[in-house]
Amino acid sequence: MIGKLMQDRVLSGKKAVNELYRTGYYGRPKEDSLELTLVEAAYLLYKNKLDIELDNRILEFEEFFTEAAKRQQYFELKYIVYKDLRERGFYVQSGVTDFRVYPRGGHPGKAPAKSFVYVRSERIPMPLTDLLPSVNAAENVRKQMILAIVDEESDLTYYEVKKVNPKGKTDVIRPAGDLIRSTLLKDRVLVWQAAHAQYLHRNGFYGKPLDDERLQLSLVESAYLLNLGLIRIQNSDTGNDPGIDEFSLLASSIEPDFLRKYRAYADMRNGGLVPKTGFKFGTHFRVYADAVSLEKIPHSEYLVHTVAVDHVFMLPVMSRAVRLANSVRKRMLYAIGERDGMMYLDIGRIKM
Amino acid sequence: MIGKLMQDRVLSGKKAVNELYRTGYYGRPKEDSLELTLVEAAYLLYKNKLDIELDNRILEFEEFFTEAAKRQQYFELKYIVYKDLRERGFYVQSGVTDFRVYPRGGHPGKAPAKSFVYVRSERIPMPLTDLLPSVNAAENVRKQMILAIVDEESDLTYYEVKKVNPKGKTDVIRPAGDLIRSTLLKDRVLVWQAAHAQYLHRNGFYGKPLDDERLQLSLVESAYLLNLGLIRIQNSDTGNDPGIDEFSLLASSIEPDFLRKYRAYADMRNGGLVPKTGFKFGTHFRVYADAVSLEKIPHSEYLVHTVAVDHVFMLPVMSRAVRLANSVRKRMLYAIGERDGMMYLDIGRIKM
Repeated sequence: MIGKLMQDRVLSGKKAVNELYRTGYYGRPKEDSLELTLVEAAYLLYKNKLDIELDNRILEFEEFFTEAAKRQQYFELKYIVYKDLRERGFYVQSGVTDFRVYPRGGHPGKAPAKSFVYVRSERIPMPLTDLLPSVNAAENVRKQMILAIVDEESDLTYYEVKKVNPKGKTDVIRPAGDLIRSTLLKDRVLVWQAAHAQYLHRNGFYGKPLDDERLQLSLVESAYLLNLGLIRIQNSDTGNDPGIDEFSLLASSIEPDFLRKYRAYADMRNGGLVPKTGFKFGTHFRVYADAVSLEKIPHSEYLVHTVAVDHVFMLPVMSRAVRLANSVRKRMLYAIGERDGMMYLDIGRIKM
Repeated sequence: MIGKLMQDRVLSGKKAVNELYRTGYYGRPKEDSLELTLVEAAYLLYKNKLDIELDNRILEFEEFFTEAAKRQQYFELKYIVYKDLRERGFYVQSGVTDFRVYPRGGHPGKAPAKSFVYVRSERIPMPLTDLLPSVNAAENVRKQMILAIVDEESDLTYYEVKKVNPKGKTDVIRPAGDLIRSTLLKDRVLVWQAAHAQYLHRNGFYGKPLDDERLQLSLVESAYLLNLGLIRIQNSDTGNDPGIDEFSLLASSIEPDFLRKYRAYADMRNGGLVPKTGFKFGTHFRVYADAVSLEKIPHSEYLVHTVAVDHVFMLPVMSRAVRLANSVRKRMLYAIGERDGMMYLDIGRIKM
């Protein structure tokens, strides 16, 4: 079988439709020819199922591979992913993202594609604004969105990316009998009275006991409780009791991401979740969905990291976050503040 | 027992030497008084073993705590760590770093201190140039160096930091019969001939097979082999065969950290270790110490991340790296290029 390299395609004759498309779903049949992408052609060349001709000369694998890499951006990455998927037994076609992948046992014409695959190199930072259109495109046609990342040694990692809407079972805390008094000391807030400390800690797991009497609240916890009207916070530097706006400004000067974190924190609390610091996991929050009683704190289900809409993912950093979350049996979520609410992106490693 | 708050100390009388120092090793005995740090005094106040007087008035815990936080930087962090260590049964004294901690069963006058503890907030970036003097100070007197990190919820994580000198059992690769030909295609290098590919892969686990014939090398692997005189690399863009200097420049344009990575890579290879990409773990390398045969690749022992001498640790990021390494039973090492060689800092979580 012979194909001709024409720009970024390889064209083969009518015979190829029968021998390559009908038996292995390579390429797209045209009127009286078969059109192959460069990665399809390279894979067929490697499998000795196709010779490729340029200027009336048959190319060696090395020549074709080098030539293809010049003609198509990220050809070598796409080839690695395509070859891997084919060798795992999937039929693969080019698509809106890099590839459409058919479910096991399915093929073009029989079943619809199951997944959209988007190929990236670990070296190339991935803007959220590049990722989201692929996620949305897949979601609109109910496909699974898969990110295939090629590392410097050409090893592959597959991630599934999806929007989720996590909810929990913890009721929003109600005001206690009296307004709870607390003090902002540098970068944390202290509740001094034992009854107050217990009320906050027992009704929603706020804060952490400093000792058997006193409780420390984080800045986001304090802001949330201040906004609900449960506490007042004395600033130990000035003696004033700031309102929520002034407190937010103060907190932002201590923690530059404060407003972004607070927005996600409040959204999760309002949805019945209990977010606590994720410091030990290197994320903003670890989040409990079933925290009903203090005596029986369950396993936290999510790690949540807030990112801005213009966030650029450094893929080694993302890889580490997801790997760590999965190694402690949690889901890794990225929380993004949109105009009319929060969006949570769940990114998890998958085996194809 | 009464102590007087004087600047950043609390002074108590001779009786305190007997009742506080001799029984619990609080403070430092002076001629006829006992000098307590603010954290010691706060802890004794909390334990109802000391009243603290300022301007002829006894202070409430809340008053003293707020006052101390104004008088000493990071008082509230140090208090949390001090209290935790005392309650775990350790005797603690102030020292060159924040605290000196005595071994279990030991106390001042009986045994030398075992550890130096350095307290940091997760919020405050930690320059390597701040950490290293503490590591060196501890090492010079053969103490364990412990980093105690307080997160936003006042939870504590302890890390041991030490210099290590990892070595492995893999011999440095020798030249094959002939010079191995390869091609730089964008950001990876391909070895085309099966015999060459096998030679490199079998003698030191270089590269990753693209298929049963061809091998892909990463940039650091290629530079190392080029420098050893084993391979020549054709640049597919120009047709030239760059030397090591030109290749390093090219590689640096693809990967900004290339030279730093290459220096650590070459040092580890020369020390018998096998570094492979650590992408899946979010670090520069995963490193094998016992990689002797391709048929029996062992568990990799280290994750290694190279950092510059002016590196500033973001503690949530460091926490994640260490946590992930430990969760997959590896040690997390930071590789730092010094004037006369590489230094490896091992940072691991410990339970006190």
